[in-house]
Amino acid sequence: MRIVQKFGGTSLAGIARVKATAAIVYDAHQQGHQVAVVVSAMSGETSRMHALSKDISTTAEAREVDVLLATGEQASAALLAMELKRLGVDAFSLTGAQAGIRTDSQFGRANIKTVDSKRLVAAMQAGKLAVITGFQGCDEAGNITTLGRGGSDTSAVAIAIAVDADVCDIYTDVDGIYTTDPRIVACAQKIKKISYEEMLEFASLGAKVLQTRSVGLAMKHGMPIHLRSSFDNIAGSMVCKEDKNMETACVTGVPFNRDEAKITLQGIPDQPGIAAGIFAPIAEAGINVDVIVQNISDHGLTDITFTVTRADYTKTMTMMHQHCLNMKAKQVFGSNDVAKVSIIGVGMKSHAGVAQTMFQTLAQAGINIEMITTSEIKVTVVIEETDVDRAVTLLHTAFGLDASTA
Amino acid sequence: MRIVQKFGGTSLAGIARVKATAAIVYDAHQQGHQVAVVVSAMSGETSRMHALSKDISTTAEAREVDVLLATGEQASAALLAMELKRLGVDAFSLTGAQAGIRTDSQFGRANIKTVDSKRLVAAMQAGKLAVITGFQGCDEAGNITTLGRGGSDTSAVAIAIAVDADVCDIYTDVDGIYTTDPRIVACAQKIKKISYEEMLEFASLGAKVLQTRSVGLAMKHGMPIHLRSSFDNIAGSMVCKEDKNMETACVTGVPFNRDEAKITLQGIPDQPGIAAGIFAPIAEAGINVDVIVQNISDHGLTDITFTVTRADYTKTMTMMHQHCLNMKAKQVFGSNDVAKVSIIGVGMKSHAGVAQTMFQTLAQAGINIEMITTSEIKVTVVIEETDVDRAVTLLHTAFGLDASTA
Repeated sequence: MRIVQKFGGTSLAGIARVKATAAIVYDAHQQGHQVAVVVSAMSGETSRMHALSKDISTTAEAREVDVLLATGEQASAALLAMELKRLGVDAFSLTGAQAGIRTDSQFGRANIKTVDSKRLVAAMQAGKLAVITGFQGCDEAGNITTLGRGGSDTSAVAIAIAVDADVCDIYTDVDGIYTTDPRIVACAQKIKKISYEEMLEFASLGAKVLQTRSVGLAMKHGMPIHLRSSFDNIAGSMVCKEDKNMETACVTGVPFNRDEAKITLQGIPDQPGIAAGIFAPIAEAGINVDVIVQNISDHGLTDITFTVTRADYTKTMTMMHQHCLNMKAKQVFGSNDVAKVSIIGVGMKSHAGVAQTMFQTLAQAGINIEMITTSEIKVTVVIEETDVDRAVTLLHTAFGLDASTA
Repeated sequence: MRIVQKFGGTSLAGIARVKATAAIVYDAHQQGHQVAVVVSAMSGETSRMHALSKDISTTAEAREVDVLLATGEQASAALLAMELKRLGVDAFSLTGAQAGIRTDSQFGRANIKTVDSKRLVAAMQAGKLAVITGFQGCDEAGNITTLGRGGSDTSAVAIAIAVDADVCDIYTDVDGIYTTDPRIVACAQKIKKISYEEMLEFASLGAKVLQTRSVGLAMKHGMPIHLRSSFDNIAGSMVCKEDKNMETACVTGVPFNRDEAKITLQGIPDQPGIAAGIFAPIAEAGINVDVIVQNISDHGLTDITFTVTRADYTKTMTMMHQHCLNMKAKQVFGSNDVAKVSIIGVGMKSHAGVAQTMFQTLAQAGINIEMITTSEIKVTVVIEETDVDRAVTLLHTAFGLDASTA
C-alpha cells in the first residue's frame, strides 16, 4: 500500500512522543508499505510563535508571520526524520516548498494550488521516507506561506492525492468518530465507516477532529481518510465514499453542541434584503452565525432567529438592539442557555420519516423544540441546554445506534 | 553607502532587543543608506535545538540537525522584518536559500560557494531591506545546510562581498577590539583600525568577537568590517587592509589567554615522523593543541612542549604517559597553571627588535619565559599564570599603548 500518514501536535509534543510516533511510522514502513509522513508543529509551538509576533505588533506583517510560524513544523519534521534515521529508516525531512507544495500568496490562509509529487513518488518507490512539514508551502515567487490553523490535515490530504496514495492516515489524540459523545451516552459506538458528507456535518458541529477543508478536498478526489489514534494501535474511523453498507443505517450519529445562544428579531417587515441587513454588521464584527431560521411571513411581518456562540451573545444582543430600530423590528429577545442536537446520515435521503421519528422521540420525553433546520443528510433542533443529555441518549437508542451489550 | 549589518544572538534575545536592533537598522536606512541585514538565532535557541537533537541521538543525522537549527535564524529574521515593517521600512525576510546562498553539502560545517546577489542588489536599489538568516544556505540539491557555530559572521561578510557593500557592520555585545583586556589594564584603548592579519591573530588568541573564518574571507576580498556594539551608538573597531597610519604603531595589542596547560615530552629520539606520531592520537581524540615548540636535537634526542586547554589537560597527560613508552621518550611532565601572552602588530615586519623589547621587559620584572613562538606579526610567550597581569600591564606600557590620561 502507499500511505500518507499525518501526525498532529500532540503526537509530537516532546521527545518521548516523537519517538512513539516514529515507532508507528517505522512499523508501517517495515510492513513494506510505501510511506510519506506529514507533521504539525509540536503542541504549543504555533501559539508561542503567534504570541511572539503579537509582541511585535497585533497587525504584524502577514508574510513574516508565516515565515515565523513555518519554523514550528520544520523543527518537528527534522526531529522525526532524525529519529526514523536512528531506527534505520532512510528518512529525510522536506519543507513544504521542498516537497513541491505550491500555494497562492494569501499569507496566513493560503490555498494549495499544486503539489509536484515527482520527488516524493520517486522517494517512496525507492523505499525512502519523506517527513514533510504540514500547514505550509510556498507561492510562485518562492515566499513561504501557511494554510492557516489546522492546515496540516489539508496538506496531508493534498499530498496523498498527489502521490495517488491508497489512504491518508490522520493520527490524532482520539481514536475515531463516535455515534455521539461516549461521556454522555455510555453505549456510543465508534463509527467504522463514515461518508465524506456525514463527516463534513460532524465536523461543522464541533467534532473538531478533522478540518472541514481537508474533508472537502478528500471528497472531491475520493481519497479515503483513516482517522485514528497515535496512542492506540487500533482501527479508527474510515472517511470515504458512501457504499452499500452505509445505506443500511439511516442515521449515523447524534452530534451535539452546547455552545449556543439564540437571538430572535420579532416582527420585521418582510422585504427583500432584510436578512442581508441583519447579518452584514454581525459578519463585519467577525461573529460566526450558526443556525438561522426564518418563518414565512404573517401580514407582511416575519421573525428571524439565529444562534451564535455564547461568547458572542452579549455583543450580538447589543448590536441587534441598536439595529432593531433601523430594521423596524417589534422586539429583540434571546437566551444563552440553548444547545443544538442533530441527527446525521446519508441514509436519510432514502428513508422517509426520519425527522418525524426524531420529533416524536423528543415530544414523548417532553422536550420542547425551539428551532428546526434540515438539510439533505441532517436534521438539527435547538433545545434547552438542560435537556441535551436526555435528548441525545433517547435519540441514540431510537435510531438503533446503541452498542449491543454482550 | 551600501551597508550589510549583522546582528548576533544577544542583539535579538527577546522582543525588547529585537526592537532596539530594529531601531539601529531603521536609522541607517533613514539616513539614505542601502542596507541589508543578516541575523543569528536568538541567544540560547541554537543550544536549545542542539539539546533537542541530542535527546534523539548523540549522533543525529547531520542533514536533519541542520534543518532543525536553521529554524532559529528563520524565526529571528521574521521577527526583525516584522518590526521594521511596523516602523514603516519596506523590509522582508529571506532564508539563506532564498537569498541565493549556495554551499557545499557538508552539513553542520558547510562552506559558502556562491551568493547570487541579483535579488538583493535589486531590492537595495529599490529602497527595500532584506533581513537574511545568517549561518545557513542550501546546497545544489536544495538541502538546507548550516555553516557551523559562528557562521553568521561569515554569511554577513559573504553577502557584503556579493552585493559589493562599502562596509560590513558586525554588531555584538562589545564595542570593539582593545589593545588588551581593560579589566586588567585600565588604560587599555579601543583599536580604531586593525588589519585583517592582526585581527586573525587576536581572534585565535581568544578574543572571540569575530569568527576567524569571516575575517579570512573579508581579507581575501578586501571587505572592511566595522566591529561595533548594538548597545551603544559609537564607532567600534574597523578591520581593514593595513594602511600607512597603521605602520606608525609597531605593536597593536597585547592579547592573552589564561586557559592554557603545557605538556613536555623529554628526550624523544629525533626521527622523521616524530611530531606526527605524538599529535595524531591527540587530534583523533578531538583535543585542540595550541602552541607547539620543539628545540633542535641534542645527541639525537629532542624535547617537544605543547599547550592544550586546561579542560583537556588530564586526558592529554594520560594519553602521553601511555604514548611515552611507544615513542621511547625519557619522561613526560606538565603543568596546568600557565598562560599565554602575545604582542601583535603588522608593524613588527618592518621594526627590528620588537621581540627583544618584549623579552627584556619581562626579564626586568623577573618574569620567567617558559616557551616562545613567533610569527611574522606576533610574538607569543608562555609564562606562569600568576605573572599574567603584571606582564600584560608592563608590555602595554613598553609598547606605548597606554591611553594618555588627559
